[in-house]
Amino acid sequence: MSYFDSSFHSTLLQQAVDAFNRLPGVGKRTALRMALYLLKQPKEDVEHFGRAFIRLRNDVKYCRICNMLSDTDICPICADTKRDDSIICVVEGLRDVMSIEQTGQFRGRYHVLGGIISPIDGVGPKDLSIEALLERLGKGGVEEVLLALSTTMEGETTAFYLSKKASSFPVRITTIARGVGFGDELEYADELTLGRAIINRQPFGYM
Amino acid sequence: MSYFDSSFHSTLLQQAVDAFNRLPGVGKRTALRMALYLLKQPKEDVEHFGRAFIRLRNDVKYCRICNMLSDTDICPICADTKRDDSIICVVEGLRDVMSIEQTGQFRGRYHVLGGIISPIDGVGPKDLSIEALLERLGKGGVEEVLLALSTTMEGETTAFYLSKKASSFPVRITTIARGVGFGDELEYADELTLGRAIINRQPFGYM
Repeated sequence: MSYFDSSFHSTLLQQAVDAFNRLPGVGKRTALRMALYLLKQPKEDVEHFGRAFIRLRNDVKYCRICNMLSDTDICPICADTKRDDSIICVVEGLRDVMSIEQTGQFRGRYHVLGGIISPIDGVGPKDLSIEALLERLGKGGVEEVLLALSTTMEGETTAFYLSKKASSFPVRITTIARGVGFGDELEYADELTLGRAIINRQPFGYM
Repeated sequence: MSYFDSSFHSTLLQQAVDAFNRLPGVGKRTALRMALYLLKQPKEDVEHFGRAFIRLRNDVKYCRICNMLSDTDICPICADTKRDDSIICVVEGLRDVMSIEQTGQFRGRYHVLGGIISPIDGVGPKDLSIEALLERLGKGGVEEVLLALSTTMEGETTAFYLSKKASSFPVRITTIARGVGFGDELEYADELTLGRAIINRQPFGYM
């Protein structure tokens, strides 16, 4: 976009805009707005701003048990003695843990794969925290593995792979219910979802 | 938003998300997506990313003549000997310079006020680069001052103030044309704009 490239007149500004522009969902115009915003902030604030990202990237750890992002070797959920050890919820990433925690409906443990099997993106089982999950199952005490993965092709592939691997352990393998979401209009639900929702119909007043 | 505050389990992540969240137009969810994106980038890239902002804020300069953001004491536009010294276009900020440069219709000089008179935001004439503009006019050689300010209350106030101040110099004071923009639908134009567009009507085929 020549609008920007030709008219910056400042390499420092250009570099800051380019940096913002690399973030997901940030276009050139937004990046410029962000950079100009920073210019109006106190120097210490901008220093703090820039260092927050460097520190995050350099100092972050992953929980030794569940592979979740954590400041400590063992994350707070794994360290919580009040949670149920008999069920492990397997998720793709941190955001899924946050979403599920927010529901307040799950009090078991988690296992964060750190991605999803996706041949197109070159992500195979070896790139994910699957061995660590099987090790946890091998230690015993786990009765149920709840697969909470996306309903995409990659999610289903990963779920299938995990269910095969986990089948050699004495655990029940479950998956979150598929159906028409709350607030969704029936006419916009795809036929696969709607079909599953009919097959898995529930007594009225159940929820 | 308890969704995030309660479920982070990482102060480092929280701080990075908070930092992004302070940017204009970035909500908590977007901030989280940005922070998780950074986590997947190489360390050197994130280091470079964070430092770009710190460097911008610490090392940036403003042109000694026109007050535009610049890496050098005199900005490239002021240093360009091919531009017309007899006309100065007064703008609020850098983005306006970029927009006007992009039109290719202006080959004179600029003067960047660095803001706009706004009593509500506590910005008075003393906070803007107005004295420096008057000094430029005092040196002579300038025949026209083109006020290219927003058509907001603040813009009009600033334009009025500047026209008063500049009237003691032998310069013609002009403002950019007001009218119905290209691609605008007439029925959506406000009456003030439309009224001005009628008063300032042009011979057909002029543009």
